[in-house]
Amino acid sequence: MKIGIVGLGLIGGSLGLDLKTYGYEVLGVSRRESTCTKAVAMGCVDTASVDLSLLGKTDVVFICTPLGLIIPTARQLITSLGRNVIITDVGSVKTPIVEGINPLWENFVGGHPMAGTADSGIEAAQRNLFVERPYVITPTATTRPENIQVIEGIVQQLGAKIYYCQPEEHDRAVSLISHLPVMVSAALIASCMAEGESQVLQLAQQLASSGFRDTSRVGGGNPELGVMMAEYNRDALLRSLSEYRHQLDELIALITQENWQGLTTKLNSTHQARPKFVE
Amino acid sequence: MKIGIVGLGLIGGSLGLDLKTYGYEVLGVSRRESTCTKAVAMGCVDTASVDLSLLGKTDVVFICTPLGLIIPTARQLITSLGRNVIITDVGSVKTPIVEGINPLWENFVGGHPMAGTADSGIEAAQRNLFVERPYVITPTATTRPENIQVIEGIVQQLGAKIYYCQPEEHDRAVSLISHLPVMVSAALIASCMAEGESQVLQLAQQLASSGFRDTSRVGGGNPELGVMMAEYNRDALLRSLSEYRHQLDELIALITQENWQGLTTKLNSTHQARPKFVE
Repeated sequence: MKIGIVGLGLIGGSLGLDLKTYGYEVLGVSRRESTCTKAVAMGCVDTASVDLSLLGKTDVVFICTPLGLIIPTARQLITSLGRNVIITDVGSVKTPIVEGINPLWENFVGGHPMAGTADSGIEAAQRNLFVERPYVITPTATTRPENIQVIEGIVQQLGAKIYYCQPEEHDRAVSLISHLPVMVSAALIASCMAEGESQVLQLAQQLASSGFRDTSRVGGGNPELGVMMAEYNRDALLRSLSEYRHQLDELIALITQENWQGLTTKLNSTHQARPKFVE
Repeated sequence: MKIGIVGLGLIGGSLGLDLKTYGYEVLGVSRRESTCTKAVAMGCVDTASVDLSLLGKTDVVFICTPLGLIIPTARQLITSLGRNVIITDVGSVKTPIVEGINPLWENFVGGHPMAGTADSGIEAAQRNLFVERPYVITPTATTRPENIQVIEGIVQQLGAKIYYCQPEEHDRAVSLISHLPVMVSAALIASCMAEGESQVLQLAQQLASSGFRDTSRVGGGNPELGVMMAEYNRDALLRSLSEYRHQLDELIALITQENWQGLTTKLNSTHQARPKFVE
């Protein structure tokens, strides 16, 4: 089976390394000639080109570009693709991608491998990046079962844990556990900064320790990624933020009313709930 | 110099271990006989008793009980104390403690060593717990300079980094970097739980990774500690929460209005500010 990969960064490059290991012929496309050369040299792909028409005779194409380029890439890609080729993507938000590509290509299957490292780019590509990591596949009512099977077969070889759900369910879940934390954490840093150049701010900076470090980490992360999440997953994120604001108001009310029994009940419930998300 | 320690837990016990190393005679008081025996056996104190009158002839007494017991302990302690004995405490909130003890005892100096481990109790006591950790001393206009000097001298021997500020400044700073994060983080867990028993919640639990792990850590911590912070530092915490809610509303507005340039500016500023708190 011939597999095409568009976008040779951390995800695309790592995917290529594994797929070649499992005996697939892998063809890669990147916008930069230098990335193509590097991908071949690193063993991520057998052949690479800056021209999408390289992928015309593949069986499956993974679109691994940044989120904002997935639909434009698909639009361009299908002009040179045999009509039975299965397209899948690795975008971290699924509803707009699936809604955008489904009408263009009947052999599309949406996907989201939840693997990553702090590094990015083809240089960061590594074998076994997807082992034991979640890989969400988001078919819709019109997705062909045989296409789902093909993608599932490949993902199983990567060693990932496969989950199936609707695109909307995926987006609401990642909104809660990934996109909401970024905004919650950013608002924490912004609150501290609002102290201005006061002695309290200076003292806070001197005294900050592991609690602040952990709670502020994702809010102090890559701004472009945060904006991209908000832009593509806006509806689910706004829904999460609205619930969050409600929960925050409830805590503020308990503290204002000095309802320590109520606050104890609330903090007991969050204490008990957290291990269901992370060990 | 004879030093008394009331409350032989992680902080009191660790303090005793270091002070004995530096040649002080250390007398300890605990509510439990078994803790007294353990403290002597571990070398945390020279002598221990369940009776506060043991400390009558000391020069300095550290009150290391839980926050809620500091003022009652001081009240009881002073009935058997020579009038020149300096009392200090290690409470994590300073305004109510300083306001409570200052009128009772003219030789009081408030303090807060910001050291801790995940463990508690005398069994967790360790040498050098305070080395390179912040130790905040919170004198007021009526605190005697010679008493501040005595406490400073002892704290310097512990190897801690000493900061001086007013009790109110301390409480606002720890509200921002320690108590606010607990509420912010708890509201995140509560928001996820609000999904009820839906498939989205189940998926969120399966997909949660390092971002959720870090942002939810302190909100899933010890409920009693969270309530105690809120109860004793209520005013500063409510002020922090009010600013936080304002910042959250600003983020919600930017996303609602699809003001991606504004969101970029905001996330750039939090990205740049975080390293001023933690490396």
